[in-house]
Amino acid sequence: MTQMRILLEESDIPTHWYNVVADMPNPPAPPLGPDGQPVSPERMLAIFPGNILEQEMSAERWIPIPEPVREIYKLWRPSPLCRALRLEQALETPAKIYYKNEGVSPAGSHKPNTAVPQAYYNAQAGIKRLTTETGAGQWGSSLAFAGQMFGIDVRIFMVKVSYDQKPFRRSMMQTWGASVFASPSNLTESGRKVLAEHPDSPGSLGIAISEAVEEAAGRADTNYALGSVLNHVLLHQTVIGLEAKKQFARAGDYPDMIFAPCGGGSNFAGVAFPFLADQAAASAPKKTRLVAVEPTSCPSLTRGHYAYDYGDASGLTPLMLQYTLGHDFVPPGIHAGGLRYHGASALVSQLLKEKLIEAVAVAQVGTFAAGVQFARAEGIIPAPESCHAIKACLDEALRCKETGEAKTLFFNLSGHGHFDMASFDKYFAGQLEDYEYPAEEIDAALDRLPKVG
Amino acid sequence: MTQMRILLEESDIPTHWYNVVADMPNPPAPPLGPDGQPVSPERMLAIFPGNILEQEMSAERWIPIPEPVREIYKLWRPSPLCRALRLEQALETPAKIYYKNEGVSPAGSHKPNTAVPQAYYNAQAGIKRLTTETGAGQWGSSLAFAGQMFGIDVRIFMVKVSYDQKPFRRSMMQTWGASVFASPSNLTESGRKVLAEHPDSPGSLGIAISEAVEEAAGRADTNYALGSVLNHVLLHQTVIGLEAKKQFARAGDYPDMIFAPCGGGSNFAGVAFPFLADQAAASAPKKTRLVAVEPTSCPSLTRGHYAYDYGDASGLTPLMLQYTLGHDFVPPGIHAGGLRYHGASALVSQLLKEKLIEAVAVAQVGTFAAGVQFARAEGIIPAPESCHAIKACLDEALRCKETGEAKTLFFNLSGHGHFDMASFDKYFAGQLEDYEYPAEEIDAALDRLPKVG
Repeated sequence: MTQMRILLEESDIPTHWYNVVADMPNPPAPPLGPDGQPVSPERMLAIFPGNILEQEMSAERWIPIPEPVREIYKLWRPSPLCRALRLEQALETPAKIYYKNEGVSPAGSHKPNTAVPQAYYNAQAGIKRLTTETGAGQWGSSLAFAGQMFGIDVRIFMVKVSYDQKPFRRSMMQTWGASVFASPSNLTESGRKVLAEHPDSPGSLGIAISEAVEEAAGRADTNYALGSVLNHVLLHQTVIGLEAKKQFARAGDYPDMIFAPCGGGSNFAGVAFPFLADQAAASAPKKTRLVAVEPTSCPSLTRGHYAYDYGDASGLTPLMLQYTLGHDFVPPGIHAGGLRYHGASALVSQLLKEKLIEAVAVAQVGTFAAGVQFARAEGIIPAPESCHAIKACLDEALRCKETGEAKTLFFNLSGHGHFDMASFDKYFAGQLEDYEYPAEEIDAALDRLPKVG
Repeated sequence: MTQMRILLEESDIPTHWYNVVADMPNPPAPPLGPDGQPVSPERMLAIFPGNILEQEMSAERWIPIPEPVREIYKLWRPSPLCRALRLEQALETPAKIYYKNEGVSPAGSHKPNTAVPQAYYNAQAGIKRLTTETGAGQWGSSLAFAGQMFGIDVRIFMVKVSYDQKPFRRSMMQTWGASVFASPSNLTESGRKVLAEHPDSPGSLGIAISEAVEEAAGRADTNYALGSVLNHVLLHQTVIGLEAKKQFARAGDYPDMIFAPCGGGSNFAGVAFPFLADQAAASAPKKTRLVAVEPTSCPSLTRGHYAYDYGDASGLTPLMLQYTLGHDFVPPGIHAGGLRYHGASALVSQLLKEKLIEAVAVAQVGTFAAGVQFARAEGIIPAPESCHAIKACLDEALRCKETGEAKTLFFNLSGHGHFDMASFDKYFAGQLEDYEYPAEEIDAALDRLPKVG
């Protein structure tokens, strides 16, 4: 009888993260300062601990996972690899569909995979407080949980409009002991400046980042933590793919195609990079296509410029070579908050440029339809971000139905949708729209990219 | 190294439910009609299928779980048995604390354990539609999920004030394809009657039950499903305790005390009865105390009358011998919706009367404090109902700390709190109150109990 959930033991939690840099045909393009010169590590030490910076720059293939981090991972890891048998039957496809359920973590998504080691390394470095920003609250709640595990105070600047309209993730952060501030706040220079000009500012992720970075840079006992984009974040997420490889071995199967939602790129990298390692080592039983799935309303990978750009809206970060729609890009109403990002991780971008991975964009309404179909077959209500991977996977399963191919398809269920039911409500009420980002807007962004050097 | 999550394979899902009736010292008191005579099964066939009625009356110890039900259980079962090591460390207790995590089900609680077989048996009987009532939505969402699994239309009458104020569980039910109606509705005679007198009625569970039963009784293709209290519901929940026994055997341990929240009684029965079987068979390695935990604001087991009373507020059901505060009891503001019930299951009540189980009442504010302490140690945010079991378990763990006893404590985490964050918000804001139900009110209820015979 086909097993529906392939479970591993605690001892199967990976002992090392996989660093894709070791297997890249070309070294990653370095982050640059405003002067066009590579950024010195010293500058970053103001807000990141040494261990994390080392990981950020490392080209070692395997990086050990500290035992205290593995101990916390055990609260929910290894996560199940599930065979979506009922979904296959509903689609009448000859394809086999698997998904990794990252929604089983305390915060309900893959984000704690990196929040936990970030909190650990900062605690090791004697740091007492971590600051960060959050929009809808996925990342904030994950860092709140992780900080609680290692006795670190977490201070979260939450975009004011979300703070007011989406109180439940805020309560979640408070349950784990974090302090949450509506941003712009009067706790920082950046916040006070905005408030002086716009007392009713609804806030933005850019402003919240400025506040969090300002607090971290100004206090020796305080660091800053980022939830996606950077190399070390992608590194930590590789536990997903490493576990999945063991689980596929148990199932006696191997994916032909892997789908993951892609905003900054960390959950895509987490599930896909360990399979890229098999390709690089020529040890893979087959050629696996790795597909990053993004929204048509925010199509950085499929339609963006490959250029040096800032990682944040305010231009505070170093410049990174990436696919970008311009750091001042403001995506239209889109209900997958985690995919509302102007660019993409440098590693993911470079691998796409070098054609080792693929990207596809899907439109919003169809992602919710796919998510509902998944929920009705498999029982789990997916996060809107995850619905993007489901949509691309279902499209492929239906292609397989036409061609009769029994492909093995695998997607990352990056999180559950328990805190996103308002978006499902809008979907059922027919209030969601598709949005195709206009070509002239994308062209125009080219002129606004920062000049390098 | 101590394992933190004891997992089982799909093949470990029980093949039979355990029926405690087989091991009760005295046969259960029969349900009575208004005439004081035992209710004939035929009368119940209008709203329940034959298989379920058979289970309701059975004294067989083991009742086979149909394979299609086990197939659906596999979407989340076996659920993990977790060792709360971090919580033990935080409490500095010599006690060992374990919990069964029923929050991993699609609907987020133990309720699907019975919703799934109920939907299955009704589908087998050719039933096309199931009706039910729901308050906050835990049961409604579970039946919506279960109906979707077996192609049954589910129609849910949701108390209007919850329908308006708690839209997210409603969206969950709709995601699984159920129809949800604000009750009182104009779809039934009962609803129309209320609306004629009180057009702005906020509804009540009693009214919603009347509407659901009326629809089921009036259509041959439609049945009614209940989420707690009845014998067959308790029976289905025993998968929890049966799995837990296997898991304790793997861990080389056995509980001294078991705690579960108790409203109608189904999750308490589900976790406790299989351990009662060990006691009855004299095969238990030790005497295990089974503790039902209820709110002081709704203290049916600890302070109610042991008497024949209706199961519902409107007096539509047969009379059942139970601990009750009176079927017209209206509990004060309490944030554990699932524990807001005037009585308790007849089986649980009789076992309490015969001193085979125990009951304890805990006050609201302390339950949230315990839930937050649990969340900060173990990562999982518990449902307010589950917080009651946690509170009683923590109290015992702290007693063990004083006495130095290394007891093995076990509680049922009946569900997660993702849809209850508004209650946590109120707790953090200091807006929750404890409520001790006044003795004179309880005395007065005695006069309002139905006269039997």
